[in-house]
Amino acid sequence: MLEETLSRIGPLDDGAVAAARALHTRLTKPAGSLGALEALSVRLAGLAGTCPPPLLERPALAIFAGDHGVHAQGVTPWPPEVTAQMVANFLAGGAVVNAFARQVGADVTVVDVGVLTELEGEGLLNRKVRAGTRDLSIEPAMTHAEALQAIGVGIEVADRLIDGGAGSPEARQGDPSAGSGSAGANVLLTGDMGIANTTPAAALIAAFTGADPHAVTGLGTGIDSETHARKVAVVTTAVVALEADDPVGILAAVGGLEHAALAGFILEAAARRVPVILDGVIAAAAALVAHALAPHAVHAMVAGHRSAEPGATVALSYLGLEPLIDLGLRLGEGTGAALALPLVAGSVRILHEVATFDAAGVAKKE
Amino acid sequence: MLEETLSRIGPLDDGAVAAARALHTRLTKPAGSLGALEALSVRLAGLAGTCPPPLLERPALAIFAGDHGVHAQGVTPWPPEVTAQMVANFLAGGAVVNAFARQVGADVTVVDVGVLTELEGEGLLNRKVRAGTRDLSIEPAMTHAEALQAIGVGIEVADRLIDGGAGSPEARQGDPSAGSGSAGANVLLTGDMGIANTTPAAALIAAFTGADPHAVTGLGTGIDSETHARKVAVVTTAVVALEADDPVGILAAVGGLEHAALAGFILEAAARRVPVILDGVIAAAAALVAHALAPHAVHAMVAGHRSAEPGATVALSYLGLEPLIDLGLRLGEGTGAALALPLVAGSVRILHEVATFDAAGVAKKE
Repeated sequence: MLEETLSRIGPLDDGAVAAARALHTRLTKPAGSLGALEALSVRLAGLAGTCPPPLLERPALAIFAGDHGVHAQGVTPWPPEVTAQMVANFLAGGAVVNAFARQVGADVTVVDVGVLTELEGEGLLNRKVRAGTRDLSIEPAMTHAEALQAIGVGIEVADRLIDGGAGSPEARQGDPSAGSGSAGANVLLTGDMGIANTTPAAALIAAFTGADPHAVTGLGTGIDSETHARKVAVVTTAVVALEADDPVGILAAVGGLEHAALAGFILEAAARRVPVILDGVIAAAAALVAHALAPHAVHAMVAGHRSAEPGATVALSYLGLEPLIDLGLRLGEGTGAALALPLVAGSVRILHEVATFDAAGVAKKE
Repeated sequence: MLEETLSRIGPLDDGAVAAARALHTRLTKPAGSLGALEALSVRLAGLAGTCPPPLLERPALAIFAGDHGVHAQGVTPWPPEVTAQMVANFLAGGAVVNAFARQVGADVTVVDVGVLTELEGEGLLNRKVRAGTRDLSIEPAMTHAEALQAIGVGIEVADRLIDGGAGSPEARQGDPSAGSGSAGANVLLTGDMGIANTTPAAALIAAFTGADPHAVTGLGTGIDSETHARKVAVVTTAVVALEADDPVGILAAVGGLEHAALAGFILEAAARRVPVILDGVIAAAAALVAHALAPHAVHAMVAGHRSAEPGATVALSYLGLEPLIDLGLRLGEGTGAALALPLVAGSVRILHEVATFDAAGVAKKE
């Protein structure tokens, strides 16, 4: 499944890139005056293979939830049951990501890829690979097969959202008519939930970028200096002990199930040539896995925001991505991706709706 | 008119500020995890005098257009007729600001406060104070009376938008039934158009902040180094020759008609306790005038983005405002304000829609 996805990921379309660049020079605005949004719109044209690229009017956000054996090392003050409690909150529409997703019109899908407890709830997509990872500071967090299975969950969810349109995938399964008339999502947003998941994210970022664990291990959702010291030690131990040197092996050793699923989600978005807006440090870590497996996958990635977690900036720099928003957010869930969507959509809209100098009868500069 | 507006501008409501801070601690997210958006939402509660403050679902953007006598000094390569041509483009819906405003659901009102030529067009609000300013490098750009009149235009437009709901004010005048059933705007966005208007903006910023003209005079929409040197010289000359030391006197001497109107627009928003999202360097210069007249007006100001024009950052720092978006935009028109609106609205939405720890049954950290 992964190999097939990887085989479909390719470079930007040069013709569409050139057409978008040329179109920008004809629109009624000074050349380059939209800054980073111009370069983004040009890249999205290259990704879509057409200029203008499709208006990003059908967003879908997937939240992958999992738990972490490394929680036993005391890397966070939050109890692990909060993962399941927040999944219930997402399903009830009460979390911050729900509020932001409603604002931007994004459908939210919640996927259990590895929560400790058995979950149920309307709209939940049960794709549990195992009940939490093993403790990455002691042994590999996942087997190779578990990591591949979780990647496959991400691929499946991306395909469902792109194929099936809005609404929960589970709900669609029960109602064969639902979704048949509606076009699928044409922009994906990453979300995640997993108490302790900034620890595997830091380990993945250190492993893939070669950065010092101290430089990529942050305060997560808010920890004291003693807990932070333990977290840095755990990440350092895990990275030093790392034996694997292939991307899936590294992911299995020090990652999390939601990181793996997000890597698959990002890769399939790239394979389908659909932009995927990365949220914070969890998505950035997953993006490193995706990039290691398919360097061209980076063309589909849009960095939604700069998380306060230092590893996010290290990962995004490594990938050559500049975040769109930088407001000190450190919540996760997909909140930064949802907030960034209007900027991404706006960059595309310009290519559809702005008049040219000729058509509008506006003089160019002398 | 101005004095009456100033008399209604006051401090934040302490009770609403405290209520918003307390509410944030109960919502299902780690404390402080929404970074700058939390502080913004707390301030907007204080501005509205209630927690949660109103959802910002009725945005209105006003574009104030004017021409500038200082154009004669060769401070820009764009011909002055582009101001009028772009006004026509706004009215036809073909400019970048129209595309962004459509995306965020903001009504756009175009106001001629000082364009050189006679303009007409459906939806245009004709409030021309004079056909362009005088050359500020030779004489005061406006008389004191003209500056006050232009400030009054901004006050009038803010009131119309807040009172009257969506749709063009001119169109509403012709149709007494229009707007009567719709609530008025509850968030205002600044827009501007005026070839050469970054020159008076730089002069205003130098005059009000004491910054060196070199440090606040930028490349505008794109000028060469020779033109930039002329522009710096013009700004320096104007600021050195400045005799006035009262805010309206400084505005009249070195400002523009759209800067004056924007100052009034911002002040009336503050008086009505409605947030006003500032676009770029023109709005930032006008905000300095507003702040000098009524320091509490700053509570209503939200810096939409960090313009590439260096004076914008100097002005925002002086006002203690941190911009929400920093993407190298240098277009003006209100584009940066429109892009920032979802962030501002999102910050408020959290206080309305996010579940509390107690209600959602989510454990807090240990």
